[in-house]
Amino acid sequence: MIAEIIAAGSEMLTPFRQDTNSLYLTAGLNDIGISVGFKTIVGDSLEHLTGAARNALLRADIVIFSGGLGPTEDDLTREAAAAALGLTLHRDNEIITNLHKRFAERRIPMPPNNAKQADILEGAVLLANANGSAPGQFLETTFEGKRRIVVLLPGPPRELKPLFDSLVKPKLAAAMPPSFLARRELRMALIPESTVDSRTSPIYKQYADVETTILATAGEIQLHFICAKPTLEEAKARVNAVAEAIEHEMQDDIFSSQGESLEEVVLLMLGMRHLTLAAAESCTGGLLSERLTAIAGSSRYFLGGAVVYSDALKTSFAGVPPEIIEREGPVSDAVARALAEGIRQRTGASIGVSITGIAGPGPGTGADVGKPIGLVYIGIADADGTQVKELRLPGDRERIRWWAAQHALEQLRRQML
Amino acid sequence: MIAEIIAAGSEMLTPFRQDTNSLYLTAGLNDIGISVGFKTIVGDSLEHLTGAARNALLRADIVIFSGGLGPTEDDLTREAAAAALGLTLHRDNEIITNLHKRFAERRIPMPPNNAKQADILEGAVLLANANGSAPGQFLETTFEGKRRIVVLLPGPPRELKPLFDSLVKPKLAAAMPPSFLARRELRMALIPESTVDSRTSPIYKQYADVETTILATAGEIQLHFICAKPTLEEAKARVNAVAEAIEHEMQDDIFSSQGESLEEVVLLMLGMRHLTLAAAESCTGGLLSERLTAIAGSSRYFLGGAVVYSDALKTSFAGVPPEIIEREGPVSDAVARALAEGIRQRTGASIGVSITGIAGPGPGTGADVGKPIGLVYIGIADADGTQVKELRLPGDRERIRWWAAQHALEQLRRQML
Repeated sequence: MIAEIIAAGSEMLTPFRQDTNSLYLTAGLNDIGISVGFKTIVGDSLEHLTGAARNALLRADIVIFSGGLGPTEDDLTREAAAAALGLTLHRDNEIITNLHKRFAERRIPMPPNNAKQADILEGAVLLANANGSAPGQFLETTFEGKRRIVVLLPGPPRELKPLFDSLVKPKLAAAMPPSFLARRELRMALIPESTVDSRTSPIYKQYADVETTILATAGEIQLHFICAKPTLEEAKARVNAVAEAIEHEMQDDIFSSQGESLEEVVLLMLGMRHLTLAAAESCTGGLLSERLTAIAGSSRYFLGGAVVYSDALKTSFAGVPPEIIEREGPVSDAVARALAEGIRQRTGASIGVSITGIAGPGPGTGADVGKPIGLVYIGIADADGTQVKELRLPGDRERIRWWAAQHALEQLRRQML
Repeated sequence: MIAEIIAAGSEMLTPFRQDTNSLYLTAGLNDIGISVGFKTIVGDSLEHLTGAARNALLRADIVIFSGGLGPTEDDLTREAAAAALGLTLHRDNEIITNLHKRFAERRIPMPPNNAKQADILEGAVLLANANGSAPGQFLETTFEGKRRIVVLLPGPPRELKPLFDSLVKPKLAAAMPPSFLARRELRMALIPESTVDSRTSPIYKQYADVETTILATAGEIQLHFICAKPTLEEAKARVNAVAEAIEHEMQDDIFSSQGESLEEVVLLMLGMRHLTLAAAESCTGGLLSERLTAIAGSSRYFLGGAVVYSDALKTSFAGVPPEIIEREGPVSDAVARALAEGIRQRTGASIGVSITGIAGPGPGTGADVGKPIGLVYIGIADADGTQVKELRLPGDRERIRWWAAQHALEQLRRQML
């Protein structure tokens, strides 16, 4: 069974807004074994929307509309679906009564336009919307002799998501052969995608019944495995088998075997080893601390630290001797070392981590003259001593800052292995 | 003239990946007066792609494909466009020669599949791709008696963007009536969208020739104005007129009149007033510092500060007396005040800003027991004294942290007005 998702709304045809509902709907459809074959984004025009609906009914078994169910004249999904299917809309009295009640409670007269939210496709089942005034609709019908399922959903994600999960997904699942889906995810940091692919594809290609997707994000590679089987046990066994074979190949390069983020893994390892961490950040300006503290519960292992953007703060907050900064430059092995050791000592943390570098757009100045954009030093100090790593990161300011923080997290993880 | 963008690639029909090229293409098309009427996302199937191409040719004047021009068997855009148009593909010898050269330089024999990158639609103009091996194509043709323009672009953004800008946009502009586009943007922070709309819509509705879009993002409202006129002067005059009328209505609520971010405006104002800033962050864990230091040149006005996640660091880095923390709790007016004053004093900055709060998911503990999730204090200390603002922010950890930083920035801005 193939589904098509039609997102209705002129705002999604501007450079400013994107359809995101379809990602959520796709994940939910995949869960029950339904693939998405097409996505169409169309503006608030009855002609365009009706044409898009007709195309979808010709090529997809399931057509899901999101948006265009509100009360304004731009809300045309009901009319377009009816026109494409050759069905009439009838006005539901119960919904009208409920709408009048809603407005009466707020002591506002109901604008006449609102009544169109009560228009139902002939034969459709109403889907009550707990978070808004427009109900969804679910219709099993035929189009040019073929069985079709048509679903109308409200556009706002906080209305669409619960409505889809509670009312649409079970109905669609009932129409599908019974199938259970298992997922696994492995993550690696700072390894080129081509390296991961050349080492893992000979393995995952042996598991033809498992769908493997490789995603490369900033400084991270994710391997997603999905398998559908008649029983959940069978499906789980297959994704576990491929994940284990790949773990065996990639060993410690894998930081996460259940989808945890690198930040979560670092905090988890700190917790298991009863360690605490503090950070002194120069070029990343708080990004590493921000990423760690975004994780709930991080305060148990991450004490905090200093954003030592100016040279004076490198001295006053992390005890870096001014003569080192003057001699070696703030972006140097020596300063990274002193920052990591200094922040560790000042905070009493078990581990001190430091980042200093040239994020650009301008190259090094003052004592750093001649040093290139992208030169970054990561320092890690613990009871056994201090290690400093020198990096040359390509890209712009944002990329250099992100990758510097990513390297610091990965260094911390490898240090604790 | 209406355009349709067809993004080809099965990965964009998964829950993990989205078509983003179309946002870039839409902005560029709008620049030259072309609206996007439809976007279609379709997988790597010749049948699906050919059907989508045919639908697009029926309903849009300009059809732009992105993706599917590579050398693999999944790259089917050329074949689908040819099938939909009823045209043949012919293999271009010059491209073949160039491909062989590329591979020879890398001392790799060319896999035979690569030759399909040299297949050209009958009558199409080649668009040289400086950043990849697959050239784009531009074809003026007719479909069922109607004039159509068909453009094939490679999928990777770093290939698509320069190719579109340098080779496609000028050709399309030449096919359009001469028109010049002017844009303006106004931004406001922390004001409800409905308030902005009710106060500004009576104004912008008087400018029917200016397209106004209101965008609400996290803690920020943007008003975008676009106007197309036969001369650039006329277009500029109109967007400036509506922007000025709205600036007159909203006054100081507007933080940006040329599209600058709130961070940029705060740094700009610090610079104009010869002031420096330092931050002591608890619940935001470095987010405020990170946002400020993401701006190039911020080091001139932002000295840095401390991430005082633990109580001990609030004392050691910002000099907050432990008895205040014990008595009032770390999330309190008194601690926010002491943090702002302490960080200002320790760093020698003109202004010290502090954020302390309960970001969740758990409520206050220890001396903060009974305080709710979302309680946040922002402190600002300068030569004239210290102000503390208490906030009750709704939402989850991520939202509370973002809005807390947003409030701190907006407080800083208003303080400096």
